[in-house]
Order: sequence, then C-alpha cells, then structure tokens
Amino acid sequence: MRLFVIKIGGALLDDQSRLDSLLDQIATAKDFAAASIIVHGGGRALTEFAARLGIESSMVQGRRITDQRMRDLALMVYGGLINRTLVAALQSRGCNAIGMTGADANIITATKQPVRDEIDFGFVGDIDQVNTIALNKLLQQGFVPVIAPLTHDACGTLFNTNADSIAASVASSLSKEWEGNLLLCFEREGVWDGNKVIRCLTFDEYHRLRSEGFITDGMLPKLDTAFAALQHGVKRTCILQPEDVASVMRGGSAGTELQLESDRR
Amino acid sequence: MRLFVIKIGGALLDDQSRLDSLLDQIATAKDFAAASIIVHGGGRALTEFAARLGIESSMVQGRRITDQRMRDLALMVYGGLINRTLVAALQSRGCNAIGMTGADANIITATKQPVRDEIDFGFVGDIDQVNTIALNKLLQQGFVPVIAPLTHDACGTLFNTNADSIAASVASSLSKEWEGNLLLCFEREGVWDGNKVIRCLTFDEYHRLRSEGFITDGMLPKLDTAFAALQHGVKRTCILQPEDVASVMRGGSAGTELQLESDRR
Repeated sequence: MRLFVIKIGGALLDDQSRLDSLLDQIATAKDFAAASIIVHGGGRALTEFAARLGIESSMVQGRRITDQRMRDLALMVYGGLINRTLVAALQSRGCNAIGMTGADANIITATKQPVRDEIDFGFVGDIDQVNTIALNKLLQQGFVPVIAPLTHDACGTLFNTNADSIAASVASSLSKEWEGNLLLCFEREGVWDGNKVIRCLTFDEYHRLRSEGFITDGMLPKLDTAFAALQHGVKRTCILQPEDVASVMRGGSAGTELQLESDRR
Repeated sequence: MRLFVIKIGGALLDDQSRLDSLLDQIATAKDFAAASIIVHGGGRALTEFAARLGIESSMVQGRRITDQRMRDLALMVYGGLINRTLVAALQSRGCNAIGMTGADANIITATKQPVRDEIDFGFVGDIDQVNTIALNKLLQQGFVPVIAPLTHDACGTLFNTNADSIAASVASSLSKEWEGNLLLCFEREGVWDGNKVIRCLTFDEYHRLRSEGFITDGMLPKLDTAFAALQHGVKRTCILQPEDVASVMRGGSAGTELQLESDRR
C-alpha cells in the first residue's frame, strides 16, 4: 500500500489559493487507495506573531533559537492556529484529518539538541524515534495525521523540531510496512540549478552542484534530509510545488525527483 | 465498561500543583480498567493572553463574545498551548493522550449560535453531534482523547464551545456503549448551599436552592448541563475538586453528586 507523507512549507500557509489547491489534492488521496500523513511548517507565521508581542526571533544558521517563551508561542502558532485550521479545512473536504504533535499518541520522541560551538538552540529537539505502532493504528482506522513541527521527550517537555526532518523520519520509519513516498511541497516548482528546474537529481549530481555553489543555503539541509530518507527506505522523494501533488500521487513526475544513483549506471 | 469524562476547569490550569495531582490521578484510570476522556477549559488564560495583545475580552451573561480574532486566539491558547501541554504532561505519566478539537477525526460538529436578543456571540458553536464511532475507535485503541473547548461545522469553520457542554455531550453520547461517569472538576470542593458543600443534590433540591438564591451565577449553567447529562443516560455525575477524582473513580463519593430523584421516593 502506498503512503504519501506530504510536507507543507511555511510560505504556502500564507498563500490561501495555493494552499486550497493543495488541500483539494490531498483530499483526493483516498481515491488512489493510499494513506496520507501531512506535516506542516509555520516559521514565518511564528516570527510575525512573536513580533506582535514584541519578541524578536533570533536565528543562527537559518535556525531558530527557541527559548521557553518562543517554544510556548510555537505551541500556539504551530500546534494551535495552523494545525487546527488545516485539520478543519481538510475535514471540510471529506478528509478524516487528526491534528497531532509528537506528544499526541506519543508518535515522535526527541532529545534536546546538544549545545554545539557554544550555540544553545534551546527547546529544539532532535528526533529519537517515530512510533510506527501508534501511527499504523491511526492509518489503519482511516485517519490522516496532520503533524505540527513539535516533538516531546516523553518526560513532559515539548520541542520545536524541523518539519522536513519530521516528514523524512516519519516516511522512513513507515517504509517497512508501506511503500513510502515523501513529497516536500514548497512555493517553487522544484530545485533550481541556476538555469532551470532539475527534473531528476542524483546524489552525485547534488554534491557537484553543491560544491560548485549552484545549490545553497536553505536548500542544503532540505536535500540532505530528503536524500537520507531515500537511503532509509523511502521509495520516492520529490521536491515540488503544491499544484503538482495529485500528478505525482497518480504516478506521474513533477518538480525535482531525487535518486540515489543515476539510471545509467 | 466504565468511562470517565473528566472536565478540567480553567482555574485549575493556573494552579500547577493541583493540576499535577489531577493528572497523576487521571493517569491511574487505566488501573480501574476504565477508559477516560479529558475536556479542558482555559478562559482565564485566553483573557490574559488577549490582554497582552491589547485585545479586550467582551463578556455578556458570563459568556465570551468571540469575533474571528478572538477565535484565532482561542485556537492558539485552547487548541495549542493548553491542549498540547496537557497531552505532553499526561504522556510523561504513561497515559496515552491524544489532543483534539471537535474537528480532529470530526468528533464534534456544531452550528453557530443564533443571534438572540440582538446579541451575536460570533464564533461560538452549539453542539449538533458527537461522533461516537470515531471516539470509540480511539478509546478501543487505548487512546485518551484530550478535548479542547473547540468544535467545527464540518465546512471549515471552528467555534469556541463551552467545555462543560462538550464534556456532558460526550458523556451522554457514549452512554449507550459505556457506563458513563461525568466528573466536573473545579477549584472548590463541590456545590455550596451557603453553609456547606452539598453531598447529594437532587433535581428538586437544585430548583429549590436556585429559586431561593442559594445557587447563582456561573454554577447555574454548569448544573443545568450536568443534570441534562444524567437525563441523557450518564450514570453518575459529580462536581468536585481535583484531589477527589481517584476516590470517585474507585467508586467512592466526594464533592457534590447529582441525582435526578431522591433515594427516599
């Protein structure tokens, strides 16, 4: 059985018409006899909301320093406003969504990210384990988990956790029982090599483009995470725009598809 | 099989040591071979948080006027901060909690409260239906639903909804399959008649004390809701302090127990 783990990037959450198009497509997933899990971001909304409270977001290497006050705002924005609104929007489309953090049904445990180079990211969690038993129970009952970028340590502490990492870990962990498909949706058509969208990106080509400076910044951790998912058993990984999700679900190609090895070898 | 629907009043959420005691007791529920559903409030926290954003809470007849801006804050405070924190705290106690609004798994649908006496409460929902099929699926899998005071219309709109009403409706609706027990926990020992805590309150006695002015204000809708639950099949309804929950779960008596008819009749 095919499982689609679909990550919705934060910028899409601000674009209602593109988001609506994506949710329409996700709601049709059951027509392909496939299970779905949604993972969403929301960093932009969190930064804006924190600013309304006079709290400045401090980013290091593109990642957020999350003190307790910021973590509580993340619970509100990611775990409350965005997650609950997405669930209601999916339910209105007949998709039996159920909104979760890693703490709900204990689906994702994490450990506080260690201090490195004297940088303490605070309440940021590195994923330890995905509870496939709990997720399988929910999927088998026909529910569509909608996961906020939050995890817990099973001792009462919640963490901010990167949404791409959650999507990749969930897809990898479930790849024993399911044919895992990881779709990382963001605002652009795919990965850009400087001239055009790359249709198929092999691991070797990725490292060449990276070393030559054609792929940079925020795309690097995303691609590292996405390739790691392929290495850990995910069948198919695409980085794509929301408009192309249904096409990929039907087996077509769109955006940038990652491959561990070139077909020519 | 006995089901306990436990409502956690908003004032308790501000009192960490009493809340911890309550969560410890809830986590022992599985020792009594019983299923549990938690419903929480949070109005006080919402009022405080809105004030931090310069948004004043407007109350009419003790109930909140919920415009869209306030509803979004309710999603954040009820559906995010409070709900997610309670779930993590229960998981740390070995209780397999899963946090929900009425939209998650489509468990509670509602209709916008009609305008009455020219008062429009805004995004406030009156409960239409509790989805017992979905709740039973979750209970049978051993999950403990933790429900925020939010419902949806199944067309994408989320509503603020009274937590006592949610607890009573959930307990009533599940009383065909379960022996329903409704425990409304709040900061006091029970219902007060002016001199002492009433140990057993019959429907007739309630109306006498009400007409004589001994029971007033916020206790009236709570008691109306609680008696309605008994009328709709709930086996046992208690209004009690958090410290007494485990005792009632073990079959003992505590707080104020409601009865439709006097035992002497």
